Parts: sequence; C-alpha cells; structure tokens
Amino acid sequence: MVAARYIGNKGFDLVGEELAPQVGEVRLNVGYVGICGTDMHIYHGVMDQRVSIPQTIGHEISGVVAEIGADVTGFTVGEKVVVRPLDWCGDCPTCNAGHTHICQNLKFMGIDTPGAFQSSSTVKARTLHKLPAGVDLKQGALVEPLSVACHDVRRSRLVAGEKVVVLGGGPIGQLVAAVAKSVGAEVLVSEPNESRRAFADELGVKSVNPIEQDLAAYVDEWTETKGADVVFEVSGVKPPIDAMTQIAGRRGRIVMVAIHSTKPEIDLFQFFWKELELLGARVYEAEDFDWAIELIASGKIDLKPFISSVSPLTDIGSAFASMDGNPEGMKALVECNAE
Amino acid sequence: MVAARYIGNKGFDLVGEELAPQVGEVRLNVGYVGICGTDMHIYHGVMDQRVSIPQTIGHEISGVVAEIGADVTGFTVGEKVVVRPLDWCGDCPTCNAGHTHICQNLKFMGIDTPGAFQSSSTVKARTLHKLPAGVDLKQGALVEPLSVACHDVRRSRLVAGEKVVVLGGGPIGQLVAAVAKSVGAEVLVSEPNESRRAFADELGVKSVNPIEQDLAAYVDEWTETKGADVVFEVSGVKPPIDAMTQIAGRRGRIVMVAIHSTKPEIDLFQFFWKELELLGARVYEAEDFDWAIELIASGKIDLKPFISSVSPLTDIGSAFASMDGNPEGMKALVECNAE
Repeated sequence: MVAARYIGNKGFDLVGEELAPQVGEVRLNVGYVGICGTDMHIYHGVMDQRVSIPQTIGHEISGVVAEIGADVTGFTVGEKVVVRPLDWCGDCPTCNAGHTHICQNLKFMGIDTPGAFQSSSTVKARTLHKLPAGVDLKQGALVEPLSVACHDVRRSRLVAGEKVVVLGGGPIGQLVAAVAKSVGAEVLVSEPNESRRAFADELGVKSVNPIEQDLAAYVDEWTETKGADVVFEVSGVKPPIDAMTQIAGRRGRIVMVAIHSTKPEIDLFQFFWKELELLGARVYEAEDFDWAIELIASGKIDLKPFISSVSPLTDIGSAFASMDGNPEGMKALVECNAE
Repeated sequence: MVAARYIGNKGFDLVGEELAPQVGEVRLNVGYVGICGTDMHIYHGVMDQRVSIPQTIGHEISGVVAEIGADVTGFTVGEKVVVRPLDWCGDCPTCNAGHTHICQNLKFMGIDTPGAFQSSSTVKARTLHKLPAGVDLKQGALVEPLSVACHDVRRSRLVAGEKVVVLGGGPIGQLVAAVAKSVGAEVLVSEPNESRRAFADELGVKSVNPIEQDLAAYVDEWTETKGADVVFEVSGVKPPIDAMTQIAGRRGRIVMVAIHSTKPEIDLFQFFWKELELLGARVYEAEDFDWAIELIASGKIDLKPFISSVSPLTDIGSAFASMDGNPEGMKALVECNAE
C-alpha cells in the first residue's frame, strides 16, 4: 500500500495506510488517477486554506473492487468502477430538492477529504459507477472530467443542429466540444494556443485564434448574424468574458464552466437586450456519469487522444512538474497499481 | 386632433395630424397613456441619439377603435383595446424562431416610431389586445407595464410557494411583486425609499430597507439558509448587483429586468458554486398581454393604487415635471381624449 500525500509547496511524500471498508463502503485497488486543473492549483499552494496538509489528493479515479463493507449490495470483487467523488449530507434544503451535487455541506474527495493518489482507496459505495467490458481503467480515469463536460452540455439544453462556441481549449473545453459534437451540434473552439487548436481540429471541430481574428465578426459570419446558440466559458480569463455576451445570439445560453475568482465586469445590457441566459454549472450528477460512460462505451467519444502521459505513483512529483505550465498536455494519468 | 411631441430638453409642443388607417391598421381614439421610466429618460435627453426629434412618444396605451383599415378583421368601432407597442420584421432568425419581441430589427413605438401622447393614433391591428367589459381605459393604460412584470415572472419559471426577492420598489418592481404574489409566491421587496416600502406593505408583500438592514442576513433567516428561489433585479443601480448573487439560493434564478448601461462587476464564482441562472428579460410577448388583462379582469391584481395622477394631454409638460425625481409617484396617466 502506497499513498502519495500533498505536503505543500509542490511537494509530495509517500506513506502507506490501508483502510478496511466500513458500513456502506467499498475498498478499491486504484487503477489510474488523472491530474486535474484543480490538482495543479493545490500543487501551487493556492488552495492551502481549504486542503488540510498533508492530504492525499486526486479525484479522477478508476479502480477495481477489492473489498466490500457491510450493507453494500450490487458489487462484486474484481469489478471495474469509477468514483463520483462527491460526499453530500442528504439533509439540507438543496439535497432535499434533489440537487445533491451542490449540497450546502458538500465535501469533495481529494480536496476536502482524502483522494485517490494511492494504491488503495476506501470510498462510499454510493459514489461508484460500474465500467462496462469495453472500457478500460485508463479511459475510466477520464470519466470524471468527461462527466463535467456532460453536465455542462446538459445544463445548456443543447440540441442537434445548434451552433456552439467553446471559449478555451484546455482539457475541459475540448471535452465539452466533444460532447457537444456527439449531440449533433456544430462546434467552434476559440483558443489562442496553436497546439490546442490543432487538438480541436483532430477532434473534428472548428477552431479559431481570437488573438489573430475578431471572434465576434467570425461568429457573426459563421452564424449568418444569428449569433451562437450556446457559449461555454471555460477559459477563466478576462477577454472571453467580454466576448461571451457579444457572440451569443438572442435567447442564447452562456454556460459558466470556469471558476472566476475575481469579479469581472459583465455587459448586463446584452442580457436584457438579447434575453441571454447565464447558467452556472458545477461538477456533475449521477446521470452525467452514466452518460459519460455510455459515450465512451458506444465509441461516440474516443478518449485516447486526451491521454498525454502515464506515470507510476512513485513518480507523482515529476508527473505534476511535467504538466506545470504545459498547454500541450491534455491529461496526465498516474498509475496507482502496476499491472 | 392634438399630438404632443417631445422636442428635446424636457420640452413638448402640440400639433395635430390625424392619420387614416392603411392596410392592416386601425385608428384609435386614444384613452390614457402612462408615463414610463423610459419616457422620463427621453424627457431628460439621454435617448436623443435614438429618438428622432420632434417625436410623439408614449407607449403605455389604451384606446377605443375609431376607424378600421383594409384587410383588418375581428375588430369593431367602439371596442376598448390596448396596444402592444412592438413592430417586428417577421423575417430575421429571431422572428423565425418565434421570438418576435426581441426581433433583430425591432422597432419600439414611442421611441423608434411615433407613440401615443396624442388624441388619435394609427397602429397595426396585430398590436391590439381587446379589453373585457370590466376593465376601464385607465386600467388599460397599465396593461403594458403589467405585461412587463408578467414576462419577467414567466421568464423566472416561478411556482407557488417559492420565495422571491424584488430588488427595487419602483412601478415595475411593485408590479413584479404583485404578479409574483398572484402566482402564490412569498414576496419580499428590497427598497430604501420609505413611501415605496409602504406601497409594498399595502400590496400585501413584505418589504425591507437594505440600507438599514443586512439584506443577505435577512434573506438567510427568512429562507432558513436556503436562499431566495428567484431574485428580480429591477433597481438598475450597483448595490443590488452585489446582493443578487448573495441572496439567491442554490439553483436560484436571477431575472435581469433593469437596464444597466454600465458594465458592473459580477460575482461569477457564485454562478458556478450555486449553479445560479441569470435570465435577461425584455418587454413582453402576446401571452404576457393576455395574462396581464386576465389578472386585471379577474380582480387578482388591483391597479387603482398604482395610478398616482391623471393629467390632460395639454398639461403633458407638467405631468412629466411632477414625476421628475418623485419616488412617491407610481404611475402618472395622460388623458388623451377628454371623456
């Protein structure tokens, strides 16, 4: 048993403590765990207020059922699963309204509670989704970020034939583009970085460099003056915030995927004039995991191009370092049990 | 025939030019026309770029059918009607999608084209809604602003039992409160002005002074930590912009009713965290007029307290002057044909 713990200031240590599953829990032999943008934020120390150091982080998790606790039904040792890393209270007004994913007391595994950069992880059985035969554990580690994209697209009420602009071509932006394409939308990714635009091209969607081209004029022509039906703001930086209200058409829906820690200036007049909608989207619900797994299993989305590297758990420090400030890397996986 | 024309810088002149109805048009003997906040903006000269001076303004219109043009069916001379003062092209992508009220080439009567501060007004028959027997022409002049409130509430998807905060207790805010109450919601009006708070109290809804009380704390207690289900931003000023994202609960809907000409700073993080929605709302659709007329005819909303004054057309200048900077006045009507 090996667990990597974030110990502050870009550092990790390796320890070992295997927890037997309690009532309602399952112990997993962890397969692969992806490095998320949030993990990079933690690595840089900007979330030290929220993360209790030392902490095992990591929340993009696939694994194999290793041990089953009391009162757990429906699982068998050896089954491949992924973890929906949310722990909700089940008792607040938001949970009672059925929105457990934004529970007023939500704990997020790998941030607020221990995550999965470890060979063995004990989790609540209610967080598990089974992987079908054709989906391997590497793809399984990408179910969590793909579920984010599924949730974003579901929030947008996107339908086939609509025109979509994704502002920002990082991993989540590209996954949103892939899900939107799978729905039958026409998709444009706006992204300054050349290799990320090339990634979008490989994905089979349009891309544009908003530094070199006037994005609003481009979208106006592309949509024949109608404007975009749906805009996903996935960049987290300022220029797309100005663009989003310009390029959205009348009754256009703007989904706020990025986490903006500052309060940017928003052109509220456009919300009035064009009857725009701004829809906040956070994590995912169970049906988003189900949809993501179906998209992979059916071959509608091929996740292999998203996997930039695979590193053993003992090299976690260099896996993080290699992703640091590397816009070409999409998803680095950490292999937590050598096969 | 008398028409009052805005001639710039708080001035009006009185002229006369009666237009016979053309194909598809109806000539009305105008009953009453309300003075809207937009009319006050025009009066102050801040819309001189959009309004071609001299221009007959006024768009909150009731009247009696006086003359019927060719190819108009379904109307009889002497019928009481109100005007939905929108002129849409019927040909742009937005009209084709059924959203004629936000047509890409929309003209608004009384701003972009002549309005109704005149004894006789010729309008397209497609803009007319009939008033039932129990609704008089004074109430009829308030159908337009009440339809704004109906549209705002319809955009919010409000249902009975939900808790609503209206930020700003001017005429539209109070009408939004009245419509929300008629739906069965619990309503709180946040308004610094004492007489406007008293108006809300008379309406039978709660009110709070956000200068004297911590609005966020008040709403937190009122909603037992859940937060407001729906927030209507009707103030157009900055402090409520900060408040709206604080007081909205998880999955709360914020309707942007006010016209913000600056770009205020918005707490986008709250949109992500609480999965908020921001819904722009502009004017109204035909069904909003139908709903507004039904609310008056059924007695569910009593508009009489909203009528602050009635002035003859020849006194239009003093009617505007008396509303200028007078927060106690709700709705001043101009009587365009002495009865």
